[in-house]
Amino acid sequence: MKNQQNSLLKNGETIDDLEYEDLKIIQSKFGYKFSTDSVLLANFAKAKQNDVYVDLCSGSSVIAILFLCKNKIKKGYAVEIQERLADMAKRSIELNGLSDRLSVLNEDIENVYKTLGGESVDVITINPPYNEVGETSEIDEIAIATHEIKTNLSKIALVSSKLLKYGGKLFMVHRSDRLASIVYELKKNNLEPKVLRIVYPKKNKAPNLVLIEAKKGAKPGLIIQNPLILNNDDGTETDELKEIYCRKKL
Amino acid sequence: MKNQQNSLLKNGETIDDLEYEDLKIIQSKFGYKFSTDSVLLANFAKAKQNDVYVDLCSGSSVIAILFLCKNKIKKGYAVEIQERLADMAKRSIELNGLSDRLSVLNEDIENVYKTLGGESVDVITINPPYNEVGETSEIDEIAIATHEIKTNLSKIALVSSKLLKYGGKLFMVHRSDRLASIVYELKKNNLEPKVLRIVYPKKNKAPNLVLIEAKKGAKPGLIIQNPLILNNDDGTETDELKEIYCRKKL
Repeated sequence: MKNQQNSLLKNGETIDDLEYEDLKIIQSKFGYKFSTDSVLLANFAKAKQNDVYVDLCSGSSVIAILFLCKNKIKKGYAVEIQERLADMAKRSIELNGLSDRLSVLNEDIENVYKTLGGESVDVITINPPYNEVGETSEIDEIAIATHEIKTNLSKIALVSSKLLKYGGKLFMVHRSDRLASIVYELKKNNLEPKVLRIVYPKKNKAPNLVLIEAKKGAKPGLIIQNPLILNNDDGTETDELKEIYCRKKL
Repeated sequence: MKNQQNSLLKNGETIDDLEYEDLKIIQSKFGYKFSTDSVLLANFAKAKQNDVYVDLCSGSSVIAILFLCKNKIKKGYAVEIQERLADMAKRSIELNGLSDRLSVLNEDIENVYKTLGGESVDVITINPPYNEVGETSEIDEIAIATHEIKTNLSKIALVSSKLLKYGGKLFMVHRSDRLASIVYELKKNNLEPKVLRIVYPKKNKAPNLVLIEAKKGAKPGLIIQNPLILNNDDGTETDELKEIYCRKKL
């Protein structure tokens, strides 16, 4: 195992534990690393085993790997435009023995409907670039993963609507201050927001994230779930966050 | 005072206390009565003394009276399409000695921009009909006040955008399950949602209301405030609700 791990690793990379059923992820020591957001999304989203599943803006494919395994999905696709990240994702998938079930598509999300076919997908997850272009002056791997350089909310909603079957679902994690734009772009593309959960770092702090489920072609009607609080006042993880991370309660 | 009150009352009406600076409101004993929602909106919204202020779908004008007084606004308009409610509103305004500062416009909200002029208003408050037309078979006073029979979200957003100056603000209270449609219609009409507060009847219950502030022509960027919890687990009012009602803490 150790030898196999080493043969899959390139210079400057590290293998991190996903803390779920021994799953691992290869990440760059200095590049973009996954954060709690990915774990929250993989936990918030739901799918059935036979659903055709796509993770857009997949990065190191951490959400795709976690979500596929949690939901025992038979076939999924992780779409990542950056070649180095897509290559790293492929090796992570191999490392976890998931190559038969999870394929990496190293292409622009705008082209995926040509590869997979329009209206062919049941479930999409996405942790998109959070920030608008003006918020960075860099154009490197981290900037592309975190800023709307190669894509934006409008394109994401359009692409997702093209890919999803009628009744198919999109699950997204994003910055809470962009909620209005998210809702607008989704509805404009016939993706009706159905569930919203707002994420607070602490009970009396302003929220920083939103988790959204949208359904293609659904009637309006939004369920706002109870607030998700990540940390107690003393900085320790709340019981709910521990459960999401599958950590045992003390 | 008692005699003046009686001369303003018609059959089947009652005078209720607004629990703020001795303000009173005339309401029908059997018709539509104001609820906590109005008090929450009048407290959430903000205006300056010299702002031109309009309350749309004003009903008994409870929000207009409360909000005008709380913010010491010099000139406001309460717009109500139903004649009997508009008449009752006029008498409530007289009862509170506000006839110089608050005028009732008994007309369809779609016509108000002709009366007041387009882009002439600084602040709008609205507690619109909450329910879609299909949710009632009746067409009476209560049905019109509570269902989208005479107006709907799309018209409200369009009308508000016509009325507001660039930079003017709309404050709305509505059912939380309609949040996505509200955001969509506002943005479509150049009214950018800037502040959102979600209202929960109790801490661990699903929310039922949302309070929204939108600003005409503003850049995207939404502040989600901390949840507003109305009642404690034992059914008593939370300290915050008591403050909103200006009730003394125990």
